[in-house]
Amino acid sequence: METLVPAAICHHGRIRVSTERAMQFIDLTSRIEALAAEAGIHAGLVNIQSLHTTTAIVVNEHEPLLLEDFDALLGRAAPRDAPYRHDDMETRTVNLGPGERPNGHAHCHALLLGSSASLNFAEGRLQLGRWQRVFLVELDGPRLRDVSVLVLGGVR
Amino acid sequence: METLVPAAICHHGRIRVSTERAMQFIDLTSRIEALAAEAGIHAGLVNIQSLHTTTAIVVNEHEPLLLEDFDALLGRAAPRDAPYRHDDMETRTVNLGPGERPNGHAHCHALLLGSSASLNFAEGRLQLGRWQRVFLVELDGPRLRDVSVLVLGGVR
Amino acid sequence: METLVPAAICHHGRIRVSTERAMQFIDLTSRIEALAAEAGIHAGLVNIQSLHTTTAIVVNEHEPLLLEDFDALLGRAAPRDAPYRHDDMETRTVNLGPGERPNGHAHCHALLLGSSASLNFAEGRLQLGRWQRVFLVELDGPRLRDVSVLVLGGVR
Repeated sequence: METLVPAAICHHGRIRVSTERAMQFIDLTSRIEALAAEAGIHAGLVNIQSLHTTTAIVVNEHEPLLLEDFDALLGRAAPRDAPYRHDDMETRTVNLGPGERPNGHAHCHALLLGSSASLNFAEGRLQLGRWQRVFLVELDGPRLRDVSVLVLGGVR
Repeated sequence: METLVPAAICHHGRIRVSTERAMQFIDLTSRIEALAAEAGIHAGLVNIQSLHTTTAIVVNEHEPLLLEDFDALLGRAAPRDAPYRHDDMETRTVNLGPGERPNGHAHCHALLLGSSASLNFAEGRLQLGRWQRVFLVELDGPRLRDVSVLVLGGVR
Repeated sequence: METLVPAAICHHGRIRVSTERAMQFIDLTSRIEALAAEAGIHAGLVNIQSLHTTTAIVVNEHEPLLLEDFDALLGRAAPRDAPYRHDDMETRTVNLGPGERPNGHAHCHALLLGSSASLNFAEGRLQLGRWQRVFLVELDGPRLRDVSVLVLGGVR
């Protein structure tokens, strides 16, 4: 436990990712740690936010077979081959653009996972448990994706 | 990427919403942007928090048919007509008030969606992707609901 | 609504919990309120973050029967007795340690619930609605668990 009466620092950066598959977990941990180090805070908050409605930000373990379990979990909750109202281009009238793709399932997956994660920074480092890693989750790829990272805190 | 050594600003406001249906998505984006503008920060964080246990805050696309897909998704995860222990007023002894309504399903939906969303603010504006909108999700309406919005950041 | 141009305060603490069952909701609300009071902010943010990949932080009502409903909800989404790739120790090669336990279901539950919650602090108190409580959710206990709490804000 420590209290700082710091000069406040606010640092913003973006991480660009070119995803390769329909569904993919991209581990952003080291890039986020680099941004936080660049900001130079001693303690504060790091908020990682997806800028898309068919991606998510999650924190969990980076074990390849587990990521397959997560894929299966989402597929059960909102099957990729089920019909979605959002994909009924005959009926839909809103937010329609050229090359609109059927991705109702991906929006549902994003809704369940959430669009951001807030991590604590203290004692000069990102507070992550032994197995915790931060992922951008691609749910409707492949696409070019952007993640916004905000570092807010104080120096000693 | 930018680093500020700002005068810190902390601004708190509430948004009151009178919901109209049992399940409803209320787009709060423009009201949140107005609060952030009022705070006058150049960069920082905006945390949007529901003050209820049967509402949620989510970020996704505002397309009416998609919102119906979300409704269906939640109905599959926790059906509205299934039995919930929370609604067994014969057995339950805790937090019982007059006019208690059976809403176990709504608590389950709120648990899956989450009670808050943290958004980044940078370059003078809320960092939202092209299709991202912020919603209060009513899960047991109609009711009068309150959302707390905290803006924390710095000026140039 | 209020604007502060404060001296910034950043306060970090940890809460240690010895959980007692495989699945358990531990109400941390009063301990979080104590940490926020200790920090001495008038307004700001409190971020509560789990440091594990098989626990979660959630905000909902503390009603024992409802907590059983939540348990059942998670069991339907990712059954405890289903096979998980993560638990196939014959195939898996990553992050394997002595005494590795089959807990694919617990990771899935953690993914759905989320690893942190951000709460607003204003008017000298944590902004929590009447029924809102903050829980650490144990999903693969019993174990010793740590929660990181970051308080960031300003004094008057």
